[in-house]
Amino acid sequence: MNIGLLGFGTVGKGVYDITATHPDLQVTRVLCRRDLTLPDAQVTHDFYDILNDESIDTVVEVLGGLHPAWDYVKAAILAGKNVVTANKALVNHFYDELIPLVEQSGVKFRCTAAVGGGIGWLTELERVKRIDTLSKVGGIMNGTCNYILDNMTTKGLDYGVALKQAQELGYAEADPSADVDGPDTWNKTIISANIAFDVSLDKTSVPVCGIRNISAVDVAEFTKRGYVCKMIGTAEKGEHGISAYVQPTLVPNGEPAAAVPMNYNLISMVGSNSGPRSLFGQGAGRYPTAYNVVQDCVDVLNGVGFYASYGQPVAANNDVALSYYVRGASDAWLEGNVSESWGEGVLTKPVAVAEMHAWLKQHPDAFIAAVN
Amino acid sequence: MNIGLLGFGTVGKGVYDITATHPDLQVTRVLCRRDLTLPDAQVTHDFYDILNDESIDTVVEVLGGLHPAWDYVKAAILAGKNVVTANKALVNHFYDELIPLVEQSGVKFRCTAAVGGGIGWLTELERVKRIDTLSKVGGIMNGTCNYILDNMTTKGLDYGVALKQAQELGYAEADPSADVDGPDTWNKTIISANIAFDVSLDKTSVPVCGIRNISAVDVAEFTKRGYVCKMIGTAEKGEHGISAYVQPTLVPNGEPAAAVPMNYNLISMVGSNSGPRSLFGQGAGRYPTAYNVVQDCVDVLNGVGFYASYGQPVAANNDVALSYYVRGASDAWLEGNVSESWGEGVLTKPVAVAEMHAWLKQHPDAFIAAVN
Repeated sequence: MNIGLLGFGTVGKGVYDITATHPDLQVTRVLCRRDLTLPDAQVTHDFYDILNDESIDTVVEVLGGLHPAWDYVKAAILAGKNVVTANKALVNHFYDELIPLVEQSGVKFRCTAAVGGGIGWLTELERVKRIDTLSKVGGIMNGTCNYILDNMTTKGLDYGVALKQAQELGYAEADPSADVDGPDTWNKTIISANIAFDVSLDKTSVPVCGIRNISAVDVAEFTKRGYVCKMIGTAEKGEHGISAYVQPTLVPNGEPAAAVPMNYNLISMVGSNSGPRSLFGQGAGRYPTAYNVVQDCVDVLNGVGFYASYGQPVAANNDVALSYYVRGASDAWLEGNVSESWGEGVLTKPVAVAEMHAWLKQHPDAFIAAVN
Repeated sequence: MNIGLLGFGTVGKGVYDITATHPDLQVTRVLCRRDLTLPDAQVTHDFYDILNDESIDTVVEVLGGLHPAWDYVKAAILAGKNVVTANKALVNHFYDELIPLVEQSGVKFRCTAAVGGGIGWLTELERVKRIDTLSKVGGIMNGTCNYILDNMTTKGLDYGVALKQAQELGYAEADPSADVDGPDTWNKTIISANIAFDVSLDKTSVPVCGIRNISAVDVAEFTKRGYVCKMIGTAEKGEHGISAYVQPTLVPNGEPAAAVPMNYNLISMVGSNSGPRSLFGQGAGRYPTAYNVVQDCVDVLNGVGFYASYGQPVAANNDVALSYYVRGASDAWLEGNVSESWGEGVLTKPVAVAEMHAWLKQHPDAFIAAVN
């Protein structure tokens, strides 16, 4: 396989290093803004040097972001090249154009590292579906949120301090919003649901809220009551269709999800025969992520394409009712739904997920967490 | 695929049910001691009806035990039939004859359900090794032990009561020794090590001790000190070769392994690029186990054989030193190695794993647990 590698940052360098030890996988050209000399590959500033190189059969996109990544991926597919990417935003945002395009063009497309980084989550979904049906997927999919929440829980740090530490250690970006406000978990949840349930979820029907407003008083209250707060994406298929949402969630102490440390992920599925199962590992990082990018290259080399067929567009139904911890705002609707007082906040009676998230949009300074 | 199914107990019935929904997989004959009528398969008491049926290309062995299971498996391979089994004792016990025989005969042989039941552990080892090297495998591999230890920890039960409950619920056999004394975990640890490290471990070099002698006073002491006792198999490759052993192990509260509930398994690996990862799920049960047996059938249908080549015979080196909790016996050697008093027991200074297990053989009423 001759690979054109788009990007030579954290993951790109990892892909280059791992493929260097595998004679079947040759990175022959690298797209990189910096001036760079590599022993085994030509470095270019111009994507067209890769697109027009007929010896390159596979493009590996690890630039991140929507543009120009999507323009390059689309051009590569249209030129008949296989594509491997770790870009969850790209896959989710352009799913309805991307997957049909892949199916029409006949090229192979894989994105295992997009969900779970070093965890082979999407390949395991693909394997399960050979003989089983899935009813639920999701879990702790964002290492940055988990790192912050874990440090708040185990060390009693306030949110700002925990975030700053995560930034200093490289676990969070200077602008942390894609992680702490939930878009990253949201992308991963929707991609997982699409593959697990053979659908194309209407993205606007999947509500998301993050951990930006959590404080040490919230965490102290959860600890006192035997709960650990985790950022969790959920997609579940039931009688009333698919429910799907992303939100801080209180997990009882003693459950595996409550014990997920540091920047680790724990992603779970429920199969009709295989039962509940989870995969635990590093959701990010140079070599774990690059490892799954290279695994995808091996699969492409073996003729393995996307994990599922493009599925029916469908909207999530979030009528499912959960109890929520709420702090930082109130109004008549909330007062009418209070079940009990929880420290500086309240616990609601079960309310529809969609309704709770709609309320939160009107009260952007509040913090909410569903009780599992 | 035409399947001859050996055994129609818990797992066999599950295999029959799952394959019934997959047109590519036909169970055409079933070996069963009972008189039984099935809508889609002929039932026989005579293995030779299956062996001599040339239309049967694959034998699924879910009888359990060493004999006649091994005799049937061997005959099937020699007759050119593929074999799928969930029988960890058979695979471990006859590894040195079985795997070379499979390689010589050219048939496909899979045994995913033998380690981790419903967890696709061996297939994940196989996938990792395509591009990565493993340095450590193991974990909580026996649901019976975990069920007993979890109930002792969370409910304060004594060993005998917890065992009795496990037996009443079908999580433990009337004779629980294969689970509680460790042979089951030992089989799974050695099979995992053989595949992970491309070796054939000398079984006599892998020491094993179980949980039969644990008592509520031990568990209370562990809880007080922030530890949870788990039954853990470990195989690690380092500078001094491979260390491999099976023993009760104290895991700090807050680590994922400490939170594994009920009869669940958590099996872990460390890859040079992919990092530490774990798979969590049900290690036993009709449909989880049958699910992976049927997954193996799909792989065999796709031409996929055993997870690794037969590797070099090698003995484990258990010079690695660990601290142990010890209660129930003492002598001059132990007194000379005590580091501190732990309730009714003691904590040792780091001592070689092999030495500690050799001591335990001389003191069969003692209970030991390594500190992780």
